[in-house]
Amino acid sequence: MLDDEYFMRQALQEAHKAFDADEVPVGAVIVADQRIVARSHNLTEMLNDVTAHAEMQVVTAAANVLGGKYLTDCTLYVTVEPCPMCAGALRWAQISRVVYGAADEKRGYSRISSFLLHPKTIVTAGVLADECADLMKLFFSRCR
Amino acid sequence: MLDDEYFMRQALQEAHKAFDADEVPVGAVIVADQRIVARSHNLTEMLNDVTAHAEMQVVTAAANVLGGKYLTDCTLYVTVEPCPMCAGALRWAQISRVVYGAADEKRGYSRISSFLLHPKTIVTAGVLADECADLMKLFFSRCR
Repeated sequence: MLDDEYFMRQALQEAHKAFDADEVPVGAVIVADQRIVARSHNLTEMLNDVTAHAEMQVVTAAANVLGGKYLTDCTLYVTVEPCPMCAGALRWAQISRVVYGAADEKRGYSRISSFLLHPKTIVTAGVLADECADLMKLFFSRCR
Repeated sequence: MLDDEYFMRQALQEAHKAFDADEVPVGAVIVADQRIVARSHNLTEMLNDVTAHAEMQVVTAAANVLGGKYLTDCTLYVTVEPCPMCAGALRWAQISRVVYGAADEKRGYSRISSFLLHPKTIVTAGVLADECADLMKLFFSRCR
């Protein structure tokens, strides 16, 4: 049985790819039946597109893989708390569960409202939070 | 000088294309310097992707056309009030102005929080509201 830490490590691998590409280092995977059906990271710089967050990439990709646009039996693992845009997308997708690592005190959806997610979505916060947060801090300290 | 109604009619043309394709009929254009730089409509069914709202399409497309990912000198015209996901995207894009037609009493961003948009974004609501709303009503009455 693979656990939340296992899948968050996969999301962290994606975040490291973002870091290496000078993207804000956020990574995500979507899991269905203990299987990763989509994995990606933030691509806003490469795609020149503010909507190209890790979560948006994997929601689109998972729907492609699974053949339906709703992700009702899926779990998203993402290294940083989703922003309101991504929470809104996850709501439309009716995802079952969201597991995130580091909280985002400035841009996290929960700063605005927990109603941004679907009422049935179960949220688990803080999995490998320090590792996820440290990568973000390193990135932003390097920018300055 | 082209006015808000002119550009909303262009967005309505897009909404009609969505209607004809059995998509929820929402259309959008983005305007910079009185010129339409992107136009699209809801493509969630065709793309099997909950993120493929009209607004998301045009934010991505306008950034491609203009060469920068921020839309600070642009106006979005959209036939229906944006949802929280789209408002979040518009916030990241720092769009100057949002003009919408019909309010969305169930899914509109303003039901959750006006802080979903960027604080500098100017909002104009209700342009050709009846026409925009009537197309939505016709679509949903046909679904039942």
